[in-house]
Amino acid sequence: MSAGPGAGAGPEPRFLALWGEIEDLSDASGLLAWDQETHMPPHGHGARGKIQATLAGVRHAKLCAPELSELVERCAERAAPGSVLAAQVREARRVLRRVTRVPERLARERAEAVTLGHAAWSAARARADFALFEPALTRLVELAREQARCLAEDGASAYDVLLDEYEPGARASTVGLLLGELERALTPLVAAASEASVAPAPDAAAGRFPVERQLAFARSVAESFGFDFARGRIDPAPHPFCSAFGPDDVRLTWRWDESDFRPGLFGVLHETGHGLYEQGLPAAWQRTPIGEAASLGVHESQSRLWENLVGRSPAFWRWALPLFQRHFPGAREVNPERLLPLLHSVRPSLIRVEADQGTYDLHVCVRFRLERALFAGELEVRDLPGAWDEAYRRTLGLTPRDAAQGVLQDIHWSMGAFGYFPTYTLGNLIAAQLFAAARRDLGDLDAAFALGEFRPLLEWLRTHVHAHGSLYTADELVRRATGRVLTSDDYLALRRAELAEYYGVAV
Amino acid sequence: MSAGPGAGAGPEPRFLALWGEIEDLSDASGLLAWDQETHMPPHGHGARGKIQATLAGVRHAKLCAPELSELVERCAERAAPGSVLAAQVREARRVLRRVTRVPERLARERAEAVTLGHAAWSAARARADFALFEPALTRLVELAREQARCLAEDGASAYDVLLDEYEPGARASTVGLLLGELERALTPLVAAASEASVAPAPDAAAGRFPVERQLAFARSVAESFGFDFARGRIDPAPHPFCSAFGPDDVRLTWRWDESDFRPGLFGVLHETGHGLYEQGLPAAWQRTPIGEAASLGVHESQSRLWENLVGRSPAFWRWALPLFQRHFPGAREVNPERLLPLLHSVRPSLIRVEADQGTYDLHVCVRFRLERALFAGELEVRDLPGAWDEAYRRTLGLTPRDAAQGVLQDIHWSMGAFGYFPTYTLGNLIAAQLFAAARRDLGDLDAAFALGEFRPLLEWLRTHVHAHGSLYTADELVRRATGRVLTSDDYLALRRAELAEYYGVAV
Repeated sequence: MSAGPGAGAGPEPRFLALWGEIEDLSDASGLLAWDQETHMPPHGHGARGKIQATLAGVRHAKLCAPELSELVERCAERAAPGSVLAAQVREARRVLRRVTRVPERLARERAEAVTLGHAAWSAARARADFALFEPALTRLVELAREQARCLAEDGASAYDVLLDEYEPGARASTVGLLLGELERALTPLVAAASEASVAPAPDAAAGRFPVERQLAFARSVAESFGFDFARGRIDPAPHPFCSAFGPDDVRLTWRWDESDFRPGLFGVLHETGHGLYEQGLPAAWQRTPIGEAASLGVHESQSRLWENLVGRSPAFWRWALPLFQRHFPGAREVNPERLLPLLHSVRPSLIRVEADQGTYDLHVCVRFRLERALFAGELEVRDLPGAWDEAYRRTLGLTPRDAAQGVLQDIHWSMGAFGYFPTYTLGNLIAAQLFAAARRDLGDLDAAFALGEFRPLLEWLRTHVHAHGSLYTADELVRRATGRVLTSDDYLALRRAELAEYYGVAV
Repeated sequence: MSAGPGAGAGPEPRFLALWGEIEDLSDASGLLAWDQETHMPPHGHGARGKIQATLAGVRHAKLCAPELSELVERCAERAAPGSVLAAQVREARRVLRRVTRVPERLARERAEAVTLGHAAWSAARARADFALFEPALTRLVELAREQARCLAEDGASAYDVLLDEYEPGARASTVGLLLGELERALTPLVAAASEASVAPAPDAAAGRFPVERQLAFARSVAESFGFDFARGRIDPAPHPFCSAFGPDDVRLTWRWDESDFRPGLFGVLHETGHGLYEQGLPAAWQRTPIGEAASLGVHESQSRLWENLVGRSPAFWRWALPLFQRHFPGAREVNPERLLPLLHSVRPSLIRVEADQGTYDLHVCVRFRLERALFAGELEVRDLPGAWDEAYRRTLGLTPRDAAQGVLQDIHWSMGAFGYFPTYTLGNLIAAQLFAAARRDLGDLDAAFALGEFRPLLEWLRTHVHAHGSLYTADELVRRATGRVLTSDDYLALRRAELAEYYGVAV
């Protein structure tokens, strides 16, 4: 790696060998999980669960080996501040801390609680009855609190510790300021859109879009963005995701709707953004602690940048429309004049995963406030449904008809994932700030997009984001790439520009 | 398990837990290998090799743990002769012997020699130049001899030890008698067919067979045979194979030729036979030493039984033809009168994998004799090409044009697999003997096949073969299922009957 701090001395070979095996075991589990979502026969679950448990056990034992911790501390003694080695130590310690400070009993209890939690949540959601989920969720929250106590250091709050799992180094106070500011600014924008006299045509993306053609079109866009199908692939799955087993084996999944091309196309573009990040991670640091993405927020910034800031832009559609028409010769009714406003809708709704880009972050703000209150001891699990409905009423002006449409809609809490939601909005903010910096460095990106030239943007992201792996924390990465700490300014500027463009409203 | 010897006491729970993890690691490797052949992006090889090496290392360490060997020996003390526990001990010891008696240095050297050997073989075959392969093959033979010395016991010869890896308990002397007898009997049959006045029409299976329809037809036949697609799947791959990760996750692969339906269909029926065996293995013994197939020969008997004895029979085609015509409405020229003789061709050729059923075993006999001489010290690697050509001239009456058509045609030796070839012919013999026994027990199978009723045969195989896993050695399994030791009688009777039927020749 030429970028970043001077390479200096690296970790000892023995450390690299041990860590490499741990990464190999994660990748093996990852491939089995990918297979489970994409190819495994319906009855394969029983055996698969045992195989995954064995792999997890082997990985856990390797992480717990005293030799590994000793090697990390030996690296720490030699690591100059700010060096690559110091980053290796930082990331290795982060991983080891979760393994060595959390008693095995607690890890096992959490695993069991997740299994029960998921089942209870599914049943509760099906019947729209929060009471069926409440005991399991109470247990999951208790165990997450205990986990946070085990891991807390440097005066971190419980929620800080939980956030840190997904967004290393993030603090609830900082994230809270950022999201609070964002919410205050977005609320009048959403209100202005509701009051505007124009409204997008709901059928602007409707038609008959055969699945094979959707795939061919989406693949050719992904390739134009720079996704390398010699180092990746795409398969159908019930939920779109991206998994990677090193930069040379990156797998996207997608699903589609034959009557509306948006879920298929924008799903693929989103996962392509994740996949481009994975394909751009530093090969030289593979199988080391800093060979991976900096954080979930940074990962999400890449998916949202390519999906929303590129894929929903007028410039992109100037290039993409003829390609679209070649793949869908019958879909003559799709035109940018009707489509673009629809792709930039701002209309409050109840379900996060179906929300438009204009209101999405408000859904995250609600969840962040509730989670934070939950782990500050200011909210009890039994009071969640009421607090949820009240928050939606206040923030989005809507009240869920029932708990399935409300507090039970997301899978995250049933998996014990508290502190995950904010990474979605951090992704939006980071994407906008990176995009603005790229525009400053590269000049008129729209002209390039309109010609199908996405390489300059990709190369900029490779250099400023992908190539660093987790050498820097997310905060530091953003500061170095954009010259500023993360704010919501660039994101809000984009939102305001879109509002002016598609709703004729200046706020 | 109700069949077989009284269950008695089982292995201790600790042994089952440790062995289960070892099987899980094999299954994880197996799934990664399946993925490598079916889905992995072209550039994924580097990372995949590392992951596989880590999994192999972890499995090896678990097999080497003194605790495991001690547990096996503790089971041995309690195991009544002929009990299930005794079989568990027998199979566990077989696996452990290969790990504990072969020095790590030798295992590593073999792995390296295989990598080099495969590369050298590919280059040599491409240029039809044995000299390019000779040094690597010499090394592979040396290492196999050393491996055999490490593992030899009870006066076993080097080739006995190598055979035992694929066909546990088989001895070169017994296999030699069986194959010698077979060769002597087949030779006049092949000669008689060559001299017969009738000859199959080479274009009796030709036409336009679109890949999706081939797959749909082959799948529906596989399902009729009893393959459960809720516990299995089928994917394209460069070479057809079957891998299983327990009986509930069995994966077939296939390839096809759009101008001739035979490679696709019979490839699938062959792998379906393997897959039916895997789906029928005893669930209660999963993740234990006897939960797997008895031997490669027995495995091959299942594939060849369904492919050849069922799939090429006139009764099968009485049922299958209308189905075939529904899938290929344009292929009116395909009719049993022309097709069946072609499916039972007897015509000497040079390439084993393209050989017809009537001459296939002669290819195996050649390889068996050469391998045996090689490991008896009666043949040197440098003399192989001449010995090969001479054997083909004598056995099949043909002389290879070059080494690519001759001694370099098979991949096996380049992988250090010596003693593998005989299992193909053992599969033919076992298939015929099982089929004859099933006919004795079940009566007129042809009438059932003609109605598409394959369940009685499958149930018979489930009961007499699949359900036993590796409780019995292959010899014992065949003796119990058929009431006799394995001979070539039933197989030769089938060959003679076919010769009479399709060539009008009685030998």
